Amino acid sequence: MLLKAKNLKTFAEGKKIVIINEADLHNFGTRIPTRLKISYKDKTITAIPNVTETLVEKGYIGLYEEVSSVLKVKDGEELDVDLAPFPESLTYIKKKLKGKKLEYEEFYKIVKDVIDGNLTEAEIAGFVVGLHVFGLDLNEAASLTIAMVETGEKLELTKKVVLDKHSIGGGIGDKTSMLLVPIIASLGYAIPKTSSRAITSPAGTADKVETIMPVNLSIEEMKRVVEKTNGCLVWGGALHLAPADDIFIKVEYPLEIDPLLFPSIMAKKKAVGATHLVIDIPTGRGAKIKTIGDAQILAKDFITLGSLLNIKVNAAITYGEQPIGYSIGAGLEAKEALEILMRRKVVEDQIDKVTSIAGILLEMVGKKNGKELAMKILESGEAEKKFREIIEAQGGNPSIKPEDIPIGKYTYDFVAEEDGFVIWMDNGGFASLARAAGSPIFKGAGVLLYKKVGDVVKKGEKVFTIYAESESKLEDALKVLKEETIIGIGKKRKMLIERIEDSQIAKKRFILER
Amino acid sequence: MLLKAKNLKTFAEGKKIVIINEADLHNFGTRIPTRLKISYKDKTITAIPNVTETLVEKGYIGLYEEVSSVLKVKDGEELDVDLAPFPESLTYIKKKLKGKKLEYEEFYKIVKDVIDGNLTEAEIAGFVVGLHVFGLDLNEAASLTIAMVETGEKLELTKKVVLDKHSIGGGIGDKTSMLLVPIIASLGYAIPKTSSRAITSPAGTADKVETIMPVNLSIEEMKRVVEKTNGCLVWGGALHLAPADDIFIKVEYPLEIDPLLFPSIMAKKKAVGATHLVIDIPTGRGAKIKTIGDAQILAKDFITLGSLLNIKVNAAITYGEQPIGYSIGAGLEAKEALEILMRRKVVEDQIDKVTSIAGILLEMVGKKNGKELAMKILESGEAEKKFREIIEAQGGNPSIKPEDIPIGKYTYDFVAEEDGFVIWMDNGGFASLARAAGSPIFKGAGVLLYKKVGDVVKKGEKVFTIYAESESKLEDALKVLKEETIIGIGKKRKMLIERIEDSQIAKKRFILER
Repeated sequence: MLLKAKNLKTFAEGKKIVIINEADLHNFGTRIPTRLKISYKDKTITAIPNVTETLVEKGYIGLYEEVSSVLKVKDGEELDVDLAPFPESLTYIKKKLKGKKLEYEEFYKIVKDVIDGNLTEAEIAGFVVGLHVFGLDLNEAASLTIAMVETGEKLELTKKVVLDKHSIGGGIGDKTSMLLVPIIASLGYAIPKTSSRAITSPAGTADKVETIMPVNLSIEEMKRVVEKTNGCLVWGGALHLAPADDIFIKVEYPLEIDPLLFPSIMAKKKAVGATHLVIDIPTGRGAKIKTIGDAQILAKDFITLGSLLNIKVNAAITYGEQPIGYSIGAGLEAKEALEILMRRKVVEDQIDKVTSIAGILLEMVGKKNGKELAMKILESGEAEKKFREIIEAQGGNPSIKPEDIPIGKYTYDFVAEEDGFVIWMDNGGFASLARAAGSPIFKGAGVLLYKKVGDVVKKGEKVFTIYAESESKLEDALKVLKEETIIGIGKKRKMLIERIEDSQIAKKRFILER
Repeated sequence: MLLKAKNLKTFAEGKKIVIINEADLHNFGTRIPTRLKISYKDKTITAIPNVTETLVEKGYIGLYEEVSSVLKVKDGEELDVDLAPFPESLTYIKKKLKGKKLEYEEFYKIVKDVIDGNLTEAEIAGFVVGLHVFGLDLNEAASLTIAMVETGEKLELTKKVVLDKHSIGGGIGDKTSMLLVPIIASLGYAIPKTSSRAITSPAGTADKVETIMPVNLSIEEMKRVVEKTNGCLVWGGALHLAPADDIFIKVEYPLEIDPLLFPSIMAKKKAVGATHLVIDIPTGRGAKIKTIGDAQILAKDFITLGSLLNIKVNAAITYGEQPIGYSIGAGLEAKEALEILMRRKVVEDQIDKVTSIAGILLEMVGKKNGKELAMKILESGEAEKKFREIIEAQGGNPSIKPEDIPIGKYTYDFVAEEDGFVIWMDNGGFASLARAAGSPIFKGAGVLLYKKVGDVVKKGEKVFTIYAESESKLEDALKVLKEETIIGIGKKRKMLIERIEDSQIAKKRFILER
């Protein structure tokens, strides 16, 4: 059936939707057309039809932006619209739902159909839940990884040794990537770092870097920056590296399941051509991984999967029981990172973490005493110089100073109620606090710490300050502070953390950052 | 945030969608508002937001019909729009996805949120797939059944003994309900029969009955008809009996899973107040259930579940290896049913089936020789009289004759290529054929049989006729006939059904009718 295009300039979170008039519906000779095949010139797309009495006239088809952006058709031009066949990949999803293993070709068909919009949200959920329930072995993980890589863009650099680092998430206040990239790049190695924005954390690396320089680069721009400076710090979301992941994650997040942890991480690394990779596994009560044993199992699987994908992987199990450094929130963290690079501040745990990871990477490519070498680069100012080169190459102001980064004007100081020590800090609690204050949407929002675990605190002394960009957001944060105990201060051997009086539903934090 | 309503008169298959201008999005202070809470006067609804540049202006919120029909707000009136909290029921869906059993209260919260639009398609899919993978025991099935009943409308009749029948599907050409209702009703028992439209079959009972009388009754109208005539034959889809099922089914259909078989059937029976129920289980190669053993297990579970729900259940395992009677397709089947009631035709298998099931029901409420009694009512013309009463009460023409039902004018006769017997018939193949010819959308489309399994056929003799309402649909049907072998004709001991030469993907038929 021929219908005229009407671009609706409307978005549905990546879902491909079209709207047809109910008068045209009958022509399809079926009650519920689950999906329509829409062709324009040499392009064909599958979309989910909504039906209207008035929004789109008879003879027209309204296109959501997710459809418009693929077809690139002008209003009034004719489209060929037909019933779409049931996608073949549904057969493989059903196979997974029977608990069977899938082959590469089967994963490929599924991932391709996910990207092409041939599968509905419910069908994609069927796949993701199937993976969650029945699991996927490392061969399947490798197949799915490659399928995700092959259905997206790829970065191809001149240098054939490409270093990379990835944190599986859960460590808050972590500025490692912002410091690692200039250290590695200034030693002459390529490190094309892509990062995500926050999902459940107060700020993703992309959110932080964005307060200093543009991060929404295209893959061509990213390539230019890396070829010039050896490094980059860009947002992965606009690059179409393993783009299926962005669709899978929308199913995983509400259901709090994460079956694609391995393929998701490794596909993005494979897509930028990484040859040597350190996986950072923050471990401890407040992190995603709670025990060293669990971290070791995860590390082993990453290493094996890496070898199936031709990526040399080492893992770094890192301390994850409190925030890293003294700041939480996009602007505050960016500021601290810049201060470290400028040697205005010595933030011991953060510096130890980045030089440890840099050291592992350097030793993986044959350098000796990697950690010391990384420290030297940081202390000499070479890392700062490289960082400013990258800022300039990405289109930012290379002379930026820490005080140029805007921080919220509405503040609240949390003071100690008694003398003692900081006995524990709750990552999840600090994350809730920073998010309530407006992070990551309001980049000046967050928390600045003055004390860390083990520090002596006097009654009335400031322990941390909350920053917000509006009165109302500050109030939201204060509500969290009132409801949750996020820090333990007291005598060194004070043992009680919380008294539970009724069998309430426990608040559990799900960390999807990966 | 206050936004003005704009009713869009647009439908999304039951999904509650609103469209807001991107300029208003920022005010929510979050990147992805998964769902919005929208209040108008005393009504509150949760909806999924799409975002537009042009379709809806700043300060307005566009409402899909699924939202408009609940809020009943005029264009330009103000609505209170806010971020919706994560629904509590997600906790229980996640619990099922961990393989745990759910309690009644938990099922209730899930079902309520499904109906209220508080869960996304992916989250609902998570629940349904969780049930599919981990199963649900009979106590859980009973809890889910009651939750589905309690979240919908209920029929409350004066009579306290209420008979009902349900076929789990797979028997094509089955006119049992159309014949059973008048037989039972004319004996003075209430039988408030609701039926579905076809999903995967050529015609549902509602599709068939609709060629004779209106079936889109409200629950009040249904009550009036039953109080007057003891019976009815209405479409269940508009009655809001266990309405969650209509939403679950949209997930189950593409994934070809059916974990809600028990709760779905039993909830609709409980909602009309059934006290005595016969479950018809068509069994055989061409049906949903393939073996007697499987049918017995299913029967046992229905009976146990019935006792948990206070419904006395018997099961009837019936022969399901070929179409029932001689017609397939809405109009053709309705015509045959009317001819049987008018005693113009003696269709042995169909009459045996309906009198057997009627007999079981009658014996369950204390009658003796149920089958003979049912046969007497049919043969005496009392059933026809009652059927015409019901037609009149539902607003149809009580004097309707079989020849008044319109049948497609485009026909093709399938003739035997050799002398012999009908050795086998494939239900799935005949279903495909009738659907290709246009059934159930085009009610005059279908297949009329002249021969059944065991009948002698001469070379050149007509075996069946295909009916379609258009040339192109007839061609579609002929394509199916060319591609599939749906009937075996030959010498009595001819054994080969099909020769397979390559390892193609087998066509498997999924039957969701239930």
